[in-house]
Amino acid sequence: MKKETGMGVPAIIPFKPGNPKTRLSCVLSLEEREAFARAMLCDVVDAVCRAGCSPRVVSTALFAFPRCPVEVVPHGLNETLNEILSVTDGPVLIIMADLPLADAASIGRVVTSSRDIAVVPGRGGGTNAIYLTRGNSFRVDYYGASFLKHRRIAEERGLSCEVVDTFRLHTDVDEKEDLVELLIHGEGMSRQFLVDHGFELSVEKGRVGVTRRSPARQV
Amino acid sequence: MKKETGMGVPAIIPFKPGNPKTRLSCVLSLEEREAFARAMLCDVVDAVCRAGCSPRVVSTALFAFPRCPVEVVPHGLNETLNEILSVTDGPVLIIMADLPLADAASIGRVVTSSRDIAVVPGRGGGTNAIYLTRGNSFRVDYYGASFLKHRRIAEERGLSCEVVDTFRLHTDVDEKEDLVELLIHGEGMSRQFLVDHGFELSVEKGRVGVTRRSPARQV
Repeated sequence: MKKETGMGVPAIIPFKPGNPKTRLSCVLSLEEREAFARAMLCDVVDAVCRAGCSPRVVSTALFAFPRCPVEVVPHGLNETLNEILSVTDGPVLIIMADLPLADAASIGRVVTSSRDIAVVPGRGGGTNAIYLTRGNSFRVDYYGASFLKHRRIAEERGLSCEVVDTFRLHTDVDEKEDLVELLIHGEGMSRQFLVDHGFELSVEKGRVGVTRRSPARQV
Repeated sequence: MKKETGMGVPAIIPFKPGNPKTRLSCVLSLEEREAFARAMLCDVVDAVCRAGCSPRVVSTALFAFPRCPVEVVPHGLNETLNEILSVTDGPVLIIMADLPLADAASIGRVVTSSRDIAVVPGRGGGTNAIYLTRGNSFRVDYYGASFLKHRRIAEERGLSCEVVDTFRLHTDVDEKEDLVELLIHGEGMSRQFLVDHGFELSVEKGRVGVTRRSPARQV
């Protein structure tokens, strides 16, 4: 049966505030990367709220974040999430913090899935979002080709699984090339961060990239 | 008003049979790239047919392709497509030939759009698919950040525009890294081509890539 909304579904958003997004070091200083990661987190939290879910940030360390409750759990990603899932009878969404193109429509498609589990693959075989009708029916196994692992776990447990086809949640921002997608399709704080810091689209030999007017400060 | 199917909508698929996908030269010989590009074309044609559309391949040169009619137009991409659009009163889909993750569902979402135009952005600002309710209401302008250009053209012409959120049509295969997506999410001939030619997923330091058991023959 198709559900109509994701109203009130808890949305777990894992976050690592210290030295994030190291692959962006070529264009952003440490301080800037930390601010940019928080701007992306804000965009995800906003989208989650607009989709009717209740955000719950689970961070490896304390940091200032006025937008929603932050819980500090200084453990590994899998350990932290599986502990939460083990005590979650009802529906739950796990969504990554580096998906600044997330919007209410794409999240809505995930949390209204009629299957036991809905998964959104990330680029390169990762898992960007998982929705579970019953949290404690599943355990996560991130890192590496986690999308394939998660599909296999669902199969082993006899859970019906939907793969949700959305580029907005498929696009995780890790590398300089990914900033192109954010400049083109973004609408929130993290896109504004890039604009404020001098990033713009460039076209060379027909290929689109990003350039930065002011060089990255090295910290 | 939401249309139910894309039944009979012509689907123009531009194709360049000679020396395609040069950015895959690091892992595929010229002969292999030509065979691989045709395998991807087959996957797109099959998906288009399953979505109820009528494929029409428009090629820059003659080549053997038993699956559907091929029309040879040895002109530039924009020139060729705009000539076709100018004599097309009804609905038409333009879809690229390097989208081997295309499936009936994603194409169906495009050709049942209730707007004047529906666009699927490619990675890096390109345009992977455009659906037009009336072909002659529009002109295309590919290359560079064509997604932004196409949105602008729609706006200038007062056409309502939908951006369709699908990673299956967003994922164009140009580079070695893109083969990861095809190995993970593909189901057709081009994925089989990779498997038959010794490609497999590899995980190093948590990142997923592809390796080839037998080295590419250099031609």
